[in-house]
Amino acid sequence: MTRTSPAETPLGDSFHVYDTTLRDGAQREGITYSATDKLAVARLLDSVGVGFIEGGWPGALPKDTEFFARAAAGELQLRHAALVAFGATRRPGAKAETDPQVRALLDSQAPVITLVAKSDRRHIERALRTSVEEAAAMVADTVSFLTGQGRRVFLDAEHFFDGYAHDPDCALRVLSAGVEAGADVVVLCDTNGGQLPLGIAKTVAEVVERTGFRVGIHCQDDTACAVGNSVAAVQAGATHVQCTANGYGERAGNADLFAVVANLVTKLDMPVLPTAALSELTRVSHALAEIANIAPDAHQAYVGTAAFAHKAGLHASAIKVDPDLYNHIDPATVGNGMRVLVTEMAGRASIELKGKELGLDLAGQGEAVTRTVRKVKELEARGWSFEAADASLELLLRGEMSTPDGPQETVSPPFVLDSYRVVLDHRPDGVVISEATVKVHVGGERVIATAEGNGPVHALDAALRKALLPHLPWLASVQLIDYKVRILTEQHGTDAVTRVLVESSDGQAEWTTVGVHGNIVEASWLALCDALAHKAMRVETLTTH
Amino acid sequence: MTRTSPAETPLGDSFHVYDTTLRDGAQREGITYSATDKLAVARLLDSVGVGFIEGGWPGALPKDTEFFARAAAGELQLRHAALVAFGATRRPGAKAETDPQVRALLDSQAPVITLVAKSDRRHIERALRTSVEEAAAMVADTVSFLTGQGRRVFLDAEHFFDGYAHDPDCALRVLSAGVEAGADVVVLCDTNGGQLPLGIAKTVAEVVERTGFRVGIHCQDDTACAVGNSVAAVQAGATHVQCTANGYGERAGNADLFAVVANLVTKLDMPVLPTAALSELTRVSHALAEIANIAPDAHQAYVGTAAFAHKAGLHASAIKVDPDLYNHIDPATVGNGMRVLVTEMAGRASIELKGKELGLDLAGQGEAVTRTVRKVKELEARGWSFEAADASLELLLRGEMSTPDGPQETVSPPFVLDSYRVVLDHRPDGVVISEATVKVHVGGERVIATAEGNGPVHALDAALRKALLPHLPWLASVQLIDYKVRILTEQHGTDAVTRVLVESSDGQAEWTTVGVHGNIVEASWLALCDALAHKAMRVETLTTH
Repeated sequence: MTRTSPAETPLGDSFHVYDTTLRDGAQREGITYSATDKLAVARLLDSVGVGFIEGGWPGALPKDTEFFARAAAGELQLRHAALVAFGATRRPGAKAETDPQVRALLDSQAPVITLVAKSDRRHIERALRTSVEEAAAMVADTVSFLTGQGRRVFLDAEHFFDGYAHDPDCALRVLSAGVEAGADVVVLCDTNGGQLPLGIAKTVAEVVERTGFRVGIHCQDDTACAVGNSVAAVQAGATHVQCTANGYGERAGNADLFAVVANLVTKLDMPVLPTAALSELTRVSHALAEIANIAPDAHQAYVGTAAFAHKAGLHASAIKVDPDLYNHIDPATVGNGMRVLVTEMAGRASIELKGKELGLDLAGQGEAVTRTVRKVKELEARGWSFEAADASLELLLRGEMSTPDGPQETVSPPFVLDSYRVVLDHRPDGVVISEATVKVHVGGERVIATAEGNGPVHALDAALRKALLPHLPWLASVQLIDYKVRILTEQHGTDAVTRVLVESSDGQAEWTTVGVHGNIVEASWLALCDALAHKAMRVETLTTH
Repeated sequence: MTRTSPAETPLGDSFHVYDTTLRDGAQREGITYSATDKLAVARLLDSVGVGFIEGGWPGALPKDTEFFARAAAGELQLRHAALVAFGATRRPGAKAETDPQVRALLDSQAPVITLVAKSDRRHIERALRTSVEEAAAMVADTVSFLTGQGRRVFLDAEHFFDGYAHDPDCALRVLSAGVEAGADVVVLCDTNGGQLPLGIAKTVAEVVERTGFRVGIHCQDDTACAVGNSVAAVQAGATHVQCTANGYGERAGNADLFAVVANLVTKLDMPVLPTAALSELTRVSHALAEIANIAPDAHQAYVGTAAFAHKAGLHASAIKVDPDLYNHIDPATVGNGMRVLVTEMAGRASIELKGKELGLDLAGQGEAVTRTVRKVKELEARGWSFEAADASLELLLRGEMSTPDGPQETVSPPFVLDSYRVVLDHRPDGVVISEATVKVHVGGERVIATAEGNGPVHALDAALRKALLPHLPWLASVQLIDYKVRILTEQHGTDAVTRVLVESSDGQAEWTTVGVHGNIVEASWLALCDALAHKAMRVETLTTH
């Protein structure tokens, strides 16, 4: 974990893609990452090739301190990015080396540290209640202390654009204090988000020319221009750009990492990501939305499911002949697809690709692929989603495939349900009890079992295990390790539908299944059944082949 | 309905705010406006003071033909805007006066007509399959026929930026054909949406300089720059800007009317709307989302409910003193308000600010604030989250406040629960039934009621309503309008905890409450109870004060 610059990018250290999803992005209303979520987010960001991952504010937030401790203990192996800890300069009148908040930055063991400093005279005087001299000294002391300890330091100049407009000398003085003390990059932050592209380009060019410093840019989306502002700043001379995944952030959000990076690569020919990483953008964007538990925005530029969807109309035939005349880029560049034409061709292609990935021989299975594509489309129209549920998709595809011997391979379910009942009691003493009874046919017998649990799904899972375990001993190794629920409200104005994703593990493999129903317990039951069916299928394959 | 330019704007006809929500906006997946919807949308757009309202494509779409007919018959009285019909030029080789599509434009009786024409040589040759000469003639003939009939004509030059980059002479020739035949404005369209702000500004300035024509701009959001591109184009010389409400449109959408207009007025001091109309933006944006049946985007610039929401507990004390230092504009300018989110970092200042926002008098309530801060922190450590649940927070804070008369204000719950039971049956025939029974004390009685629902929470809600309604008639107006579930996995190694957010409405106010429990049904129940308690509190306050 000692890398202080991105690995493998064509541009090397000369251009920084800097992600702050885990710190500034987490400021978005409704996002609450656990330390484990944060590790998963960092791994995904690393897989898409960003140069720097700002992990949080150690010392200020217990979850962030935990994240850095677990990363340092080996839970986070970054192939590409350098890990960054964010924090403030020492307090007015204090010493950097004894300031507990500065010590926490060192203790995080992050090789790179981004310090935030006020550069607007009004904020220095009214919010910090100190002088410009002391503000500059706070920056200089803290930067030189941390660089002296072997850390690379970037300086976030908060409220820079407002401050520069109000009192340019004060704003530049804070930048100089940082650079003279050893900061590598001074990041001009549009903290209140009031800038527009032409204005931001003018200021960035002016600051670069007046100072010669290496300049970064950090934009908020309050004028709906964060992406345009970031790109304009890069065109004006910034060589370090701070973004968040899907534009998550406080208020209207931050500059969207995916749009900024795709614009730089595809519009300005700047290879700011490792080769081939661009085609991961769509997948990673959706996975990060899942972890944040925010529905992906279908209309997001580049990565939204509707980003290349054309309403079949006027030009449908023209689009078919010359798709390049109607798309600003080839959607595949960013791992997305064009949707109107998609229906037949890309649907088949992705199922075939998925089959290959799952190790299935689809030669001569054209019919099965067609049936699967049709079924998937039908189910997805009703709220199912197989993007994250490979195991459910595999069951579907195998169920349609024919074998050399017979017309169709049988994916025999490990048991057949007769019925279940779940009873929840909130008793007069305030205790809440969940109890489930299942009646199933397994191993030639009809079995009835009852169990309790923390909630309805837990009770149902427990009862099912009790019924099946004597007949299916492999069940002992299977555990439910993650459970996600999403209420899908926009089901054509009718009643809401619930989608449940269940992740299971048998200590060796992990697999995810999906269930959708108007009733949350039944949706969970469907995902649970698929999880067991998938394990049973693998047990059977091992035994019979 | 004979007005052909906006009324009352300070800039008069010299700058056009042109809305195409009803035509280009309706291309967004999922939007299906009826003719009646269209009339309502047009009235709202007029109330916010846009100069031109493009109502649709008469002749091409029956609903659009109906809309123009009803508008002409007097159902649409525009106080401010001029009504526009959109359509194509005559077909290759045909005559404008006998082309049925051109006739439909005349028949619409719209005083202004916007014609779309291809200006990219590749589109002319490959999609239109004609020559540049014929394409220019199609424009010239159609424009002069329509202006000869007394209509004002604008020309949308489709794919202009791609076409200009590929073959500038061809693109300019199409513009000239329009202007020479009498078109007032040539609108440069980034139809595929691939432009960036600095590039679009350069091209617009160049076209204005080379031609001297009056130029308009139409941007799509495929690079997430539609707003920035539109504003940059205006700064470069465009005096007519085409937008859609909330950025609705095909693929990633169009330039958002509200952000573009707010940027022009508040950042560039261009009075493009009638005085005072700006403060209607937030209301109109939400009303238009309602008609489109799309949930408003909380994070939308200027008009989103989170656009001025501050989470950073750190700065809360500073925000309290100097709100102007932390907002890029006064939220009231666009009819929005500042909101403070209470989070795990919350301190006294956040709670005090929140109290002020809720209209509570916290003078002399130092103790109550301290107790509330402690309770919030304690609950948030167990998975609760109040940042989106103002109503639950208000109940908490009021419960801690002392009254002038007694030690503590009583927030009396509207009922007391004895017990509830929920039974879920997955029957042998596959049907799933949810049934709930509640036993409550209300109005001095013990009431038992049973009801069915789609799922356990729905059944519980139905049973509770059945029990309470005879005693609490105001309950009839209260509806559950949104329901969100989040499974919090890592509660310090113990079992998962479920957090439920419930949004309620009584047709006038909307409020959000939260519940957390190991059992999803009990978590939902807690949020449901808070929702009713909050409504009861407001009913009681109205009655007793």
